[in-house]
Amino acid sequence: MTDTTSAPATAPGFDEVFGKYKVRSLALAEAGRHQIRLAEHEMPGLMALREEFGAAQPLRGARIAGSLHMTVQTAVLIETLVALGAQVRWASCNIFSTQDEAAAAVVVGPHGTPADPQGVPVFAWKGESLEEYWDCTEQILLWPGEEGPNLILDDGGDATMLVHLGLQYERAGIVPPDTLPGEPDHTHEMNVVRGVLRRALESDPLRWTGIAQQLGGVTEETTTGVHRLYHLAESGELLFPAINVNDSVTKSKFDNKYGIRHSLPDGINRATDILIGGKVAFVAGYGDVGKGAAEAFRGQGARVIVSEVDPICALQAAMDGFQVARLEDVVGEADFFITTTGNKDVVRVEHMLAMKDKAVVGNIGHFDNEIDMAGLEAVPGIVKTEIKPQVHEWTLPAGDGRAERSIIVLSEGRLLNLGNATGHPSFVMSNSFANQVIGQLELFADMARPAEERQYERQVYRLPKVLDEKVARLHLDALGVRLTELSPAQADYIGVPVQGPYKPEHYRY
Amino acid sequence: MTDTTSAPATAPGFDEVFGKYKVRSLALAEAGRHQIRLAEHEMPGLMALREEFGAAQPLRGARIAGSLHMTVQTAVLIETLVALGAQVRWASCNIFSTQDEAAAAVVVGPHGTPADPQGVPVFAWKGESLEEYWDCTEQILLWPGEEGPNLILDDGGDATMLVHLGLQYERAGIVPPDTLPGEPDHTHEMNVVRGVLRRALESDPLRWTGIAQQLGGVTEETTTGVHRLYHLAESGELLFPAINVNDSVTKSKFDNKYGIRHSLPDGINRATDILIGGKVAFVAGYGDVGKGAAEAFRGQGARVIVSEVDPICALQAAMDGFQVARLEDVVGEADFFITTTGNKDVVRVEHMLAMKDKAVVGNIGHFDNEIDMAGLEAVPGIVKTEIKPQVHEWTLPAGDGRAERSIIVLSEGRLLNLGNATGHPSFVMSNSFANQVIGQLELFADMARPAEERQYERQVYRLPKVLDEKVARLHLDALGVRLTELSPAQADYIGVPVQGPYKPEHYRY
Amino acid sequence: MTDTTSAPATAPGFDEVFGKYKVRSLALAEAGRHQIRLAEHEMPGLMALREEFGAAQPLRGARIAGSLHMTVQTAVLIETLVALGAQVRWASCNIFSTQDEAAAAVVVGPHGTPADPQGVPVFAWKGESLEEYWDCTEQILLWPGEEGPNLILDDGGDATMLVHLGLQYERAGIVPPDTLPGEPDHTHEMNVVRGVLRRALESDPLRWTGIAQQLGGVTEETTTGVHRLYHLAESGELLFPAINVNDSVTKSKFDNKYGIRHSLPDGINRATDILIGGKVAFVAGYGDVGKGAAEAFRGQGARVIVSEVDPICALQAAMDGFQVARLEDVVGEADFFITTTGNKDVVRVEHMLAMKDKAVVGNIGHFDNEIDMAGLEAVPGIVKTEIKPQVHEWTLPAGDGRAERSIIVLSEGRLLNLGNATGHPSFVMSNSFANQVIGQLELFADMARPAEERQYERQVYRLPKVLDEKVARLHLDALGVRLTELSPAQADYIGVPVQGPYKPEHYRY
Amino acid sequence: MTDTTSAPATAPGFDEVFGKYKVRSLALAEAGRHQIRLAEHEMPGLMALREEFGAAQPLRGARIAGSLHMTVQTAVLIETLVALGAQVRWASCNIFSTQDEAAAAVVVGPHGTPADPQGVPVFAWKGESLEEYWDCTEQILLWPGEEGPNLILDDGGDATMLVHLGLQYERAGIVPPDTLPGEPDHTHEMNVVRGVLRRALESDPLRWTGIAQQLGGVTEETTTGVHRLYHLAESGELLFPAINVNDSVTKSKFDNKYGIRHSLPDGINRATDILIGGKVAFVAGYGDVGKGAAEAFRGQGARVIVSEVDPICALQAAMDGFQVARLEDVVGEADFFITTTGNKDVVRVEHMLAMKDKAVVGNIGHFDNEIDMAGLEAVPGIVKTEIKPQVHEWTLPAGDGRAERSIIVLSEGRLLNLGNATGHPSFVMSNSFANQVIGQLELFADMARPAEERQYERQVYRLPKVLDEKVARLHLDALGVRLTELSPAQADYIGVPVQGPYKPEHYRY
Repeated sequence: MTDTTSAPATAPGFDEVFGKYKVRSLALAEAGRHQIRLAEHEMPGLMALREEFGAAQPLRGARIAGSLHMTVQTAVLIETLVALGAQVRWASCNIFSTQDEAAAAVVVGPHGTPADPQGVPVFAWKGESLEEYWDCTEQILLWPGEEGPNLILDDGGDATMLVHLGLQYERAGIVPPDTLPGEPDHTHEMNVVRGVLRRALESDPLRWTGIAQQLGGVTEETTTGVHRLYHLAESGELLFPAINVNDSVTKSKFDNKYGIRHSLPDGINRATDILIGGKVAFVAGYGDVGKGAAEAFRGQGARVIVSEVDPICALQAAMDGFQVARLEDVVGEADFFITTTGNKDVVRVEHMLAMKDKAVVGNIGHFDNEIDMAGLEAVPGIVKTEIKPQVHEWTLPAGDGRAERSIIVLSEGRLLNLGNATGHPSFVMSNSFANQVIGQLELFADMARPAEERQYERQVYRLPKVLDEKVARLHLDALGVRLTELSPAQADYIGVPVQGPYKPEHYRY
Repeated sequence: MTDTTSAPATAPGFDEVFGKYKVRSLALAEAGRHQIRLAEHEMPGLMALREEFGAAQPLRGARIAGSLHMTVQTAVLIETLVALGAQVRWASCNIFSTQDEAAAAVVVGPHGTPADPQGVPVFAWKGESLEEYWDCTEQILLWPGEEGPNLILDDGGDATMLVHLGLQYERAGIVPPDTLPGEPDHTHEMNVVRGVLRRALESDPLRWTGIAQQLGGVTEETTTGVHRLYHLAESGELLFPAINVNDSVTKSKFDNKYGIRHSLPDGINRATDILIGGKVAFVAGYGDVGKGAAEAFRGQGARVIVSEVDPICALQAAMDGFQVARLEDVVGEADFFITTTGNKDVVRVEHMLAMKDKAVVGNIGHFDNEIDMAGLEAVPGIVKTEIKPQVHEWTLPAGDGRAERSIIVLSEGRLLNLGNATGHPSFVMSNSFANQVIGQLELFADMARPAEERQYERQVYRLPKVLDEKVARLHLDALGVRLTELSPAQADYIGVPVQGPYKPEHYRY
Repeated sequence: MTDTTSAPATAPGFDEVFGKYKVRSLALAEAGRHQIRLAEHEMPGLMALREEFGAAQPLRGARIAGSLHMTVQTAVLIETLVALGAQVRWASCNIFSTQDEAAAAVVVGPHGTPADPQGVPVFAWKGESLEEYWDCTEQILLWPGEEGPNLILDDGGDATMLVHLGLQYERAGIVPPDTLPGEPDHTHEMNVVRGVLRRALESDPLRWTGIAQQLGGVTEETTTGVHRLYHLAESGELLFPAINVNDSVTKSKFDNKYGIRHSLPDGINRATDILIGGKVAFVAGYGDVGKGAAEAFRGQGARVIVSEVDPICALQAAMDGFQVARLEDVVGEADFFITTTGNKDVVRVEHMLAMKDKAVVGNIGHFDNEIDMAGLEAVPGIVKTEIKPQVHEWTLPAGDGRAERSIIVLSEGRLLNLGNATGHPSFVMSNSFANQVIGQLELFADMARPAEERQYERQVYRLPKVLDEKVARLHLDALGVRLTELSPAQADYIGVPVQGPYKPEHYRY
Repeated sequence: MTDTTSAPATAPGFDEVFGKYKVRSLALAEAGRHQIRLAEHEMPGLMALREEFGAAQPLRGARIAGSLHMTVQTAVLIETLVALGAQVRWASCNIFSTQDEAAAAVVVGPHGTPADPQGVPVFAWKGESLEEYWDCTEQILLWPGEEGPNLILDDGGDATMLVHLGLQYERAGIVPPDTLPGEPDHTHEMNVVRGVLRRALESDPLRWTGIAQQLGGVTEETTTGVHRLYHLAESGELLFPAINVNDSVTKSKFDNKYGIRHSLPDGINRATDILIGGKVAFVAGYGDVGKGAAEAFRGQGARVIVSEVDPICALQAAMDGFQVARLEDVVGEADFFITTTGNKDVVRVEHMLAMKDKAVVGNIGHFDNEIDMAGLEAVPGIVKTEIKPQVHEWTLPAGDGRAERSIIVLSEGRLLNLGNATGHPSFVMSNSFANQVIGQLELFADMARPAEERQYERQVYRLPKVLDEKVARLHLDALGVRLTELSPAQADYIGVPVQGPYKPEHYRY
């Protein structure tokens, strides 16, 4: 079932002359600029990097292909990269997550007008088809003139994957034929990708070779994308150095925990207006996302039940005062079911059939298969009713001694904080994106070094702790935090530099 | 300044034939019905009253004039009154708070169609003018045929006030002339009310006498309305018994505290998308509303500073772990300023001029004068920019050694949970509204008694504790609460009936 | 079973010459003085009253018979009464609660020496027998010279009861004979009381008449004592005005809630050293004491299950995020069982037999019959082992398919915060005791008025709200609280005086 | 200043016949056995290891020299090692921390009697002198017969250090002379150590060579000890493999955080009886210990101010809702000052001079120099008064415009949870000690392998994650946790084995 509910009636094409996303209206760009201006105030990390590096222009010469949700916060990221000297082309990494006004404003740029756009080419709009999505992703890798991108900024790894797959097929001289439904590993999306690469191969049999040669590295935002990168590195196929931004403390411990604490109740409230206090909330998983989710529910007066497979995380949940149980043992007791695991089939059809009437089911982990939506659709006699966009009531037929009843599924099983609210707030993203910018700076500086002096090989790296600490440092003033300074004697006593880094690599925070 | 930003282009008139609000579309009524159906699930108190009293029809013969925010939850209240036998006419008590789809669905009724509406006359739409507002209020007191209403269900006391003022002018034989700006006590709204009453006096010089004779009582929802009622009772002017629903524990301790805990962050999030965690939140007042607000902020990871005038509440705030300070001493430190006092001039212009750039200011107490909006408008050189409806950036000119900066004001200083979100969730309102229904049942049953056996005089009453406990009892199952029962020996030991009430009148919960 | 474990080997007698408790050592008095000095710092309410009234000596002429746990905090209370001009005689209201060093220091007085005691006669020591206890209570009512006490300061009502019962028997001319075990209403303690009164009647047939005539009132600390007073007032038997200190907000909401939050985990920790975090804690009752207990457990990372009979309190517990269940349904799940109800037979033998091995059972409510200790002792084959004083392991024999197992009972079922720790901390008691002092001031000032101007009759009164607020006010500075002041316009707007009181009588805080 | 306040009048010597600590009384051993039995119930991890490995006796042949606080919990550890087949000799790692009854019970053993002790030689008692302490440490390394220990179980590294230093001097053929006060690096303790080693060298010039040859490894409990080990490993001096138990998640995240959350308020309460609620608590450091401390204070209703040098931890503190400030900026505001940093000179004299009257100062980090006790003593005119053991009032003279005032220092600046309470509760220690036992099993199993197959070299190792997870797993049942199991498909999907380990090495929990 393809959900086209929220797709715009007419998707915009590309600008033939200027190579940019068509700005549809002055009002849209102005509204976006307004929101960007407010977001800048909440993104002190990015603004501080502009302040620190704006004059030196350390990204002059960098050509960055960015694939990341085209939101207001991303607009501040893009314009920070530009302020540091980079050239940028951008696509979203999700067909639904683009905020069109942000995209419009970025195209126009802070100093341009809709008639004279001076911003950045953005290939993204809310409600792309899969075909459009991969066309857009291709566009950020095709630069006017002879040069291609020399850096990728990725979220989920689609841009990186396109380059690797393109080169693989190019070397083979052929793109495999499309698969049919029923064939092993068939997905519609893979056929779409192959279509893009087939056309590419036809038009330029050395395109990906050229692109790959110029690319000096990628910074990757997500667990999923990082997982792919480690896989490529292990098999020796990784084409360029990669910086794992996801595992910076200021990303994983902030975005995942504090971002979710904010955006989970926000999503539920906007979707359902149902009281959270006094209710029972089931949270699948007690990693960073689950920790943030459980804290958010508790902060609203809900009673939280957690499930876990990892005994350490389970013990943490218990010590934090939460009941830890299996879903099947408490499925009839909870009012909210939220998945945070990054795994598949966590909430299954048999669970959903056993829930209370009007139970709310949502996913804030990563994959839309955490909840078995396909299985739910396949229940005989089930009826799906749209309450409002991204909020559906699934009415389960009477049977097995139970009356007719219904459950509410948020965002079709996709990330509810993005689908039902506006994702993480700017301040949290300022942490994550400051890591991205610093990662790009690291890679680009390394590219400028003689080959024998380069620090980064075709491996996956985490940012050094001192840079992680720097990202944190950039966000303290905005929260009124006054840091204590070590005296040299104290620093010596514990064996660290006065200015950090302060902790061993394995420190867990 | 009148805010007409969100007013619909064309306000509907009244239906000449049927006396009802014009249903504008089938889709609207259907959407409303859908939401009502979901809300019913979250309002177990009202549904239990339908279950308990539906067959006996104890409100048969009751003609209820209702003035209360025309929301989805109120729709469930209205249809509960109808299910118990009452006839009902309804207006909203606020020009902005009507949810048009709820109004449409109530007019159509659960068993009617837009072509054949069988519901209740509703005189309310989102974005009324003050003139329209008071016309609507008049309409609920004018019933077809000879009979008028015999009960009022009020929120804020406007319907009650109209009757009292109407009768006063009727007895005087004249309505005072309109006041002019600059004259003492001049308000535009009072002139509008006088206009309504002047026309009424012209059309029927005994109208209010007749209406007052039939009225057997009022149930009142709010602190403000109750305050007016006690005033009338003390001066001997109260025309009929009044039940103070506001001070039922299941209203004041639930609506005010737990409702706010939910709807305050909801309102802030929908309005601003700004991260709450890590920020400093200033909450003016630590009554029930302030307690809910402070808990909500803490639950999201904010640091909360409370101000109080009452030393007992101040001590509670300190014992609950909050800093207690004066606004002027911490005004440069906070990111959010929320008023919960029910008093005026709590956040004043001198405070707003001293706030940090992009500080967020909102009111969730009661009166829109908690924040001195008039003073803010009068600041020379100030610029107001609408970010989106109900969210405005006020740019303060540079001066006094400070750069240009701006603050964000929510809902123009009116209740932000109603203006920026959807008010309290259904479950909370189920508590409050169950008190309303029980209050109406009490008054109507008393009216049926011989005069000498009546329990209620022209005074203000709180519901007996046993009914307060009943309201609570109706909401326990939905939260999975299993109550312990006293044994007769235990009940005897502490000197209470087995079935309650369990506490002395002065018990504070 | 009488617990004499902690009784001193030789109890002191009364000083024949000086009429005072025998100070046993300089070291004891010095240790007590030290602790008193530290406690004074934590009792700003009492110290502020000394500051305010020390010069005026408003209690000059007051002769106060005090019956209240003879602790360090009570020492500060006693010396405050003396500082305000009163003469005082003191007994404890509990056979175990006296801190001997505090008693010794009070006898010596701040300016005396053990050789030349200049303090107050104190008839109390740790580990009195029941006979000694009632002798001590009699002593505080027998003053040297012709005058008796003119005020009682009571905790639990024993001193008040002795006067009422004495007068009743005196009027009847006879004390009823002792009852025998098995006779209705037989208790050993009642026979002890009758013995005291029988001897009194023999020595002076008008003693109680004289005492009752001089008494101008009582201030009472506890729910239990207040309950007795209301009973006497209703039956017209109350001999003098009574002030119900227990129901001041600054007593009930502070002592009961915040005091328990502190002293419950303290008692459990000192008794057992068992980790609270991660465990399941069952709290019987969600009144003020239960609220404090539940918050304390949650604050330590336990999961809390609450039981309630009152649906309003039950709903509060649910809305605060706690599971609400019946004891029998969760008895096998919890690690701690704490009673806070003030009722009897809350934890019964059948419950204790069903608990997990090494479950901890304690009472922090009021009566030692909240846990059925008598029933536990009567279990065939049960073995009681003292782990340390006030901590006993009860080994339950194997049977009913269960292996041998044991439970840990704290303080023999009596108040565990007093038995296993040191009761409430000074700051909390400063609130309660400031109410006591203010109550004494009220009553004594009223006694000085001409009869026709007196405000207090033979009824039970709560302190006026303005004095309740005053008590709170006296404790704010110590917590760094800065109060906001109403402007006259604001005070007028909400209809209260600028200086308070601020709330209607029925306000619940 | 040497604190001998709590030292026993006569310290016991060693048993000449049996080589054991002299059991002073049957009562002591019985009391200890009782407490051990209760502790076993709270140490499910150790008991499960006895269950799993008791029959196989995997430590048969292991001769373990243990140096770790000789408490009741350690008794359960020792008897677990014995149950797995090991021979054991034990000393404490702290002169004050021995619980004599636990030591006595361990010597007697679960199956022995005081007349016929069958337990383990324990060289420890409460209140050792430094000379006695190092004699005891030497004793655990000297085994009867020819064989020495083949494993060390260490806490702080003193036993490990004695071997390394002994061998170093032995190789040099001489122990350096004692230093004098004033000479560089002079400490009294180092001279004591040299004395021990000098006598050793005289009695047996090859003693440490022999011991070092037999030793197969050490497991180390603490940050400090681990720090020393990494130092030795880096310089190539480490004589045997070392397992860093401290950095197991189930140690560092549980002991440090949840243990402190429990034992910090416990220590403060037992020491001072001062109300925590409503007060301001300053916590220096927001590592795991600081996180536990801050949570404990908040759970009791205190307002917490945190200081940090690490910007990441500072940002975490802010996001968790705490104020982050420098000590000097808030020193006059706080009521409690608690150090958790592991650094020195954190609370300095200038801070203590600026504190409020009766401020409470304590350390729960690690080193007693976190608070500058030496500086405090050196303040001219300062007076130290013992309130009770481990609680001292330091009266600061008037001056600099301030009146005479005093501060309360807990445990002389040493760890207050050990000094003023009983340290961490058993359940927490069960986690830490299960890591110790598993570490010993790992090392001993490796020693049995042929040299070429050994996994552990002369380096410092953390336990593999799967063993860390195992420790957690052993503690779940006791908390009622029911773990969810991955299906094979799910495990495959995220690329982990069904039975774990589940997380990458750098995962932070």
